[in-house]
Amino acid sequence: MCLIMDSEDDHHNNNNNDGTDVLSPPFNFSMVEDGIYRSGLPRPDNFTFLDTLNLRSIIYLCPEPYPEENLKFLQANNIKLFQFGIEGKTDPPTPMPKDTVLDALKVLVDVRNHPILIHCKRGKHRTGCLVGCLRKVQSWCLSSVLEEYQKNAGLKWRQRDLNFIEAFDIVSLRKCLLSIMYRYHGYGFKRRRLAYEEEKVQTPKPQATKV
Amino acid sequence: MCLIMDSEDDHHNNNNNDGTDVLSPPFNFSMVEDGIYRSGLPRPDNFTFLDTLNLRSIIYLCPEPYPEENLKFLQANNIKLFQFGIEGKTDPPTPMPKDTVLDALKVLVDVRNHPILIHCKRGKHRTGCLVGCLRKVQSWCLSSVLEEYQKNAGLKWRQRDLNFIEAFDIVSLRKCLLSIMYRYHGYGFKRRRLAYEEEKVQTPKPQATKV
Repeated sequence: MCLIMDSEDDHHNNNNNDGTDVLSPPFNFSMVEDGIYRSGLPRPDNFTFLDTLNLRSIIYLCPEPYPEENLKFLQANNIKLFQFGIEGKTDPPTPMPKDTVLDALKVLVDVRNHPILIHCKRGKHRTGCLVGCLRKVQSWCLSSVLEEYQKNAGLKWRQRDLNFIEAFDIVSLRKCLLSIMYRYHGYGFKRRRLAYEEEKVQTPKPQATKV
Repeated sequence: MCLIMDSEDDHHNNNNNDGTDVLSPPFNFSMVEDGIYRSGLPRPDNFTFLDTLNLRSIIYLCPEPYPEENLKFLQANNIKLFQFGIEGKTDPPTPMPKDTVLDALKVLVDVRNHPILIHCKRGKHRTGCLVGCLRKVQSWCLSSVLEEYQKNAGLKWRQRDLNFIEAFDIVSLRKCLLSIMYRYHGYGFKRRRLAYEEEKVQTPKPQATKV
């Protein structure tokens, strides 16, 4: 008698030598945070991988209709689609729409939508701007926000995207309830806690102790 | 009376306009998986950010002694250091030591060490090779493994690292208990479960259902 790995995906043909599935993440895939992923547009051969993320929602940042086969995957897995149609490459370049990005950000920080995947077409500019704004909500310093944007955009990085991220005002979002929910859950803020103003005033804060 | 964010880090001076801390992740920081992070060598101004990760361990992949101030941070926060001394740039180039990477991989997949941060100096080659081997354990297809390596190494990517990752044999690790523990916990395998060989034979597998 020995312990073995039992997978529900055994019916797939795409196997390693040892019988496990080969998983193919979407182009430019990476993990942003607990419950938040980013990538380029998933193709059908990425669906087995996406399945392992147990996604609850997808934020799709292109104006084009969602591909039929992707829609079927979402329906079959009860995944909610939030589409925010932001133009990609245009001539002349159109500025990133602030209000649309803010709306997408509100969906993104709402932990009730997690696990969530953000994607556009290549996962570089539109996705990069949204993630950049999320990092500002998380209080990342600007140089780290821009470094992450550039790492994911590679040689295709755009100065106007960096300018957009830098200028994006997240103060209004920081004050909204969704942001508070997110901070309460987010990994970067595990040490934070929700409290009432009065508590803060009345009770002296205990010294930070590491468990 | 209103909900506010209360942070234990309020004593730091590095503040946003709204009073929250500015967090500075280490160079080339990103999240690999639930409980696994990667970066370049953290500097003291990254410690406030690292603190938010609640790290239990660090895998350090350089032969040089760990910096004194970093050691102090680890001691103060009860973080365990696993050092695997792998040479960086040498002339002529030395091959990546397979056995050392395998030892580091065993520490990495041991969920008892999570949350864990992997770093070398720049988070590109040594860290990239170790993460690449982890992705093979996770059954990622090779092209996605190499894409991730290249994204993090940028223009500094090395063909010999790609060759190393491709040739690295993870079969022995796949069979070991630590790997099973990791798969049982890892996000990419949430649908897998531990089972006994006999169970598999005797009980017909139920249809996969999405909750």
